[in-house]
Amino acid sequence: MMLRLDSLSSSVALQSPSLCGTGSLSSQRSTRTTSLTFNGAVRFAPNPYLVRKKRLSSVKCRQSEYFDQQRFITASAPNNSSFDSETPPGGSLPPRFFVGHSIYKGKAALTVEPKAPEFTPLDSGAFKVSREGFVLLQFAPAAGVRQYDWSRKQVFSLSVTEIGNLISLGSRESCEFFHDPFKGKSDEGKVRKVLKVEPLPDGSGRFFNLGVQNKLINVDESIYIPITRAEYAVLTSAFNFILPYLLGWHAFANSIKPDDANNVNSTNRRYRGDYEWTR
Amino acid sequence: MMLRLDSLSSSVALQSPSLCGTGSLSSQRSTRTTSLTFNGAVRFAPNPYLVRKKRLSSVKCRQSEYFDQQRFITASAPNNSSFDSETPPGGSLPPRFFVGHSIYKGKAALTVEPKAPEFTPLDSGAFKVSREGFVLLQFAPAAGVRQYDWSRKQVFSLSVTEIGNLISLGSRESCEFFHDPFKGKSDEGKVRKVLKVEPLPDGSGRFFNLGVQNKLINVDESIYIPITRAEYAVLTSAFNFILPYLLGWHAFANSIKPDDANNVNSTNRRYRGDYEWTR
Amino acid sequence: MMLRLDSLSSSVALQSPSLCGTGSLSSQRSTRTTSLTFNGAVRFAPNPYLVRKKRLSSVKCRQSEYFDQQRFITASAPNNSSFDSETPPGGSLPPRFFVGHSIYKGKAALTVEPKAPEFTPLDSGAFKVSREGFVLLQFAPAAGVRQYDWSRKQVFSLSVTEIGNLISLGSRESCEFFHDPFKGKSDEGKVRKVLKVEPLPDGSGRFFNLGVQNKLINVDESIYIPITRAEYAVLTSAFNFILPYLLGWHAFANSIKPDDANNVNSTNRRYRGDYEWTR
Amino acid sequence: MMLRLDSLSSSVALQSPSLCGTGSLSSQRSTRTTSLTFNGAVRFAPNPYLVRKKRLSSVKCRQSEYFDQQRFITASAPNNSSFDSETPPGGSLPPRFFVGHSIYKGKAALTVEPKAPEFTPLDSGAFKVSREGFVLLQFAPAAGVRQYDWSRKQVFSLSVTEIGNLISLGSRESCEFFHDPFKGKSDEGKVRKVLKVEPLPDGSGRFFNLGVQNKLINVDESIYIPITRAEYAVLTSAFNFILPYLLGWHAFANSIKPDDANNVNSTNRRYRGDYEWTR
Repeated sequence: MMLRLDSLSSSVALQSPSLCGTGSLSSQRSTRTTSLTFNGAVRFAPNPYLVRKKRLSSVKCRQSEYFDQQRFITASAPNNSSFDSETPPGGSLPPRFFVGHSIYKGKAALTVEPKAPEFTPLDSGAFKVSREGFVLLQFAPAAGVRQYDWSRKQVFSLSVTEIGNLISLGSRESCEFFHDPFKGKSDEGKVRKVLKVEPLPDGSGRFFNLGVQNKLINVDESIYIPITRAEYAVLTSAFNFILPYLLGWHAFANSIKPDDANNVNSTNRRYRGDYEWTR
Repeated sequence: MMLRLDSLSSSVALQSPSLCGTGSLSSQRSTRTTSLTFNGAVRFAPNPYLVRKKRLSSVKCRQSEYFDQQRFITASAPNNSSFDSETPPGGSLPPRFFVGHSIYKGKAALTVEPKAPEFTPLDSGAFKVSREGFVLLQFAPAAGVRQYDWSRKQVFSLSVTEIGNLISLGSRESCEFFHDPFKGKSDEGKVRKVLKVEPLPDGSGRFFNLGVQNKLINVDESIYIPITRAEYAVLTSAFNFILPYLLGWHAFANSIKPDDANNVNSTNRRYRGDYEWTR
Repeated sequence: MMLRLDSLSSSVALQSPSLCGTGSLSSQRSTRTTSLTFNGAVRFAPNPYLVRKKRLSSVKCRQSEYFDQQRFITASAPNNSSFDSETPPGGSLPPRFFVGHSIYKGKAALTVEPKAPEFTPLDSGAFKVSREGFVLLQFAPAAGVRQYDWSRKQVFSLSVTEIGNLISLGSRESCEFFHDPFKGKSDEGKVRKVLKVEPLPDGSGRFFNLGVQNKLINVDESIYIPITRAEYAVLTSAFNFILPYLLGWHAFANSIKPDDANNVNSTNRRYRGDYEWTR
Repeated sequence: MMLRLDSLSSSVALQSPSLCGTGSLSSQRSTRTTSLTFNGAVRFAPNPYLVRKKRLSSVKCRQSEYFDQQRFITASAPNNSSFDSETPPGGSLPPRFFVGHSIYKGKAALTVEPKAPEFTPLDSGAFKVSREGFVLLQFAPAAGVRQYDWSRKQVFSLSVTEIGNLISLGSRESCEFFHDPFKGKSDEGKVRKVLKVEPLPDGSGRFFNLGVQNKLINVDESIYIPITRAEYAVLTSAFNFILPYLLGWHAFANSIKPDDANNVNSTNRRYRGDYEWTR
């Protein structure tokens, strides 16, 4: 197996040291001490946060082409050719944006990236949402100091409701999601993903743990990453922002304009079926 | 009566199993066990969540033409012709979007969809909001496994203030809205709708219950649907997003731009009547 | 004095009856009973919520031309001519929007409307915010059933910080703002406005009370209006939405785009002075 | 050293007196009394909030060219020439906006201003976020009544995670950030900045304290400014608004549109790698 090690680009924001907590300053320091061990110095030693019970020599088949193409986004590797090959030749479409937000820790990195909903045109020229968007989580184990092995990453797609779960999760509450990529297919039950979000013991943040059990290629591994309360607040703010877009409500919202053309059409277009409280 | 059964399209996101709660993991599991019975296996058996005391053979008159046209939106039925007939022939208007967000449970489905405010042009060329938007709730009883009978749906329009009520509702609080579609008309009092939102006994979510009493066609029915805390968080996030649009404040907000033309007009346009704290 | 009575347009959304509270349903009903007395039946009787100690025959001079022009907005009076006279003749500017959100109660009405910030062009072609926007509150006493006397209205402009105060106000907290329209002028101290926001005794909402003491025209009056928790949630949501626009941050935000032209200019434009945590 | 004193422009909104608190009105008044001393009358007296242990004659080298150019923004000084010199000659780019929000107190002023993220074009024509945006804090000590000495200002750049920290900070919690502008450079450790955010003793707001220790020019100073709860709510609201823009998520969000061109391209563009819960 060729292990690809992408060094972290210097242009990506890294967490600066901070001392923030809920108690006195002294207790904050001790809290942070605990936390800093996650960012800490164990290098090329066995990574306790990546529990890999057994692993086959080829992991290629575990990954979709799409995610292989995405491999270089957060790590700013110089070679973007596989990524660029996704582009249509015409190019008259509006520009696309890859906006993964990454959190780098000592044992793993987590990239969070929204994915757009899909619209289906109706014969009338109107559109409806045919598939809601989601947020893609990508977990990569560390492979050295500020180096992450994106070839071994595991992914998890958060549905709109699962996002709702995370943004309403109390600071002491836990959360667990189960996904089966082959649900309803012949291989149902052979791949099982579990994402757990649990409070850190000292209440200073959360643990994200993605476990993937793949009987097809005999893999059973688990990636852990601690997320501070501040980082979780960023995720919550970003999720709250993006959620209406994942539902497609922004498209409706942006279409709300006065019909300045002629009022007859306007009346036809805005049929009010059930405006109960004003009649 | 022709009963139309629309099978749920495979492209619509269904809730994946999740274990999330407020207590320890074990209590979460029991919470979820309760919840899963709502998604459960009772098929074509009498639906206890649809309490229909008496029902006439024709329900057509209970439904506006508009909502009949909307029948196929969430169920992705192939025939959209009645829906498309709403379109004006000219077609130079900006595209419209139907962005209903649906929650499917064992006994019923709920679709939530925003409806635009209306603007009235003034002689000056400016616009004012003449009618605030609303959010349309559509409840449909289940008619089989992942099948919902949208011909028997009941609708309820949430005003801006009622939306404010729902987004500020404590997790242990209840809420009740009364609507009379014929208020102020000769048939006032003959149709009575009651939407109740109540906490689930274990605090894991809410019950939405729409009761409709229609003396005109001798119907008295009630549709229940459990909404998990995560689903409610999605609704709250979407409602918070859309509320300023329902008020028309986005139109004002988007019109805030520097007047780069000439300052004289700018001064005329932005008369500041009462800027009390800076004088 | 000519008293103008504008009847409330039927197109404006009125609050539908609702029963929502924090306790059991029975206690909610009693809560609502209290509240309904505010919407209640006292008609043309002396209005206890409008405390007017003394009033001169002409109140015209208390009102700016601007607010006279605005008189008809929320009441949908047929004659908009004085309002339209504000318009510049050219008309090539983007359309303006009047988006006042109104709350109608038995003794008074309150209209809430955002007002835009002002930008000043720099020689470079860039803009800076020269004056932050605000939210205009207009209080009008009732003059009959669903009739409000906008000729006797009192206004109060909420600054950005005062808006911050209202959106962070606990449900049991009070708030008081003092404005002097002539602050720093020769008539300083002669007009004194006090806006008080206080919790209703049963916790079901707030009381807004605008008191205006005008020694110039010998007026001392006070308008009260109860705001339910749901109505306050709408205000809070709208205020949270509009606040970044009042700061002008949306203009900055909307200008964030990739510089696709040439990278040299891009570098010049985006000088990063103090990117401390990535060095 | 030439000390520049910029008088505060009258067009900038100043805090109006307000009485708001968490207790009874009487306790609020005493709370405010405390607060008003911060806005108070000590003029040209030694400023206890600006602790400057030693200061060299030339402070020019402490400041980047960028921040020198920004010096006049919040103070509305007439001479913007140095600021304007930043502009490219071509000028076909969209207009830029400077939207600093300022809080003026008796001993110091604080200006808060967002700074845009950076995008890197890919060969495909798509863009990725290469550097997340930030919020620039500028602290200036007072130099008289409503006069602030921006030549002596100190700056601090809040990263996205630090913003997340501030928006999730409990009202009784503290927070501390450390920055070293020369981290990883030869002068690492010679300049040390510490931003502390601490609750005011009476719970009515926060203290912001920026300490800068610069061994290169032998400066060790500290600027304090009290921020009321209302002002903090404005900051939180603005930070919550801007955070997704700093991540570049708005660019992604605004690119979500139906592909009305041809469906083949659409399918190519929206490859769904891991839509686990609908299969």
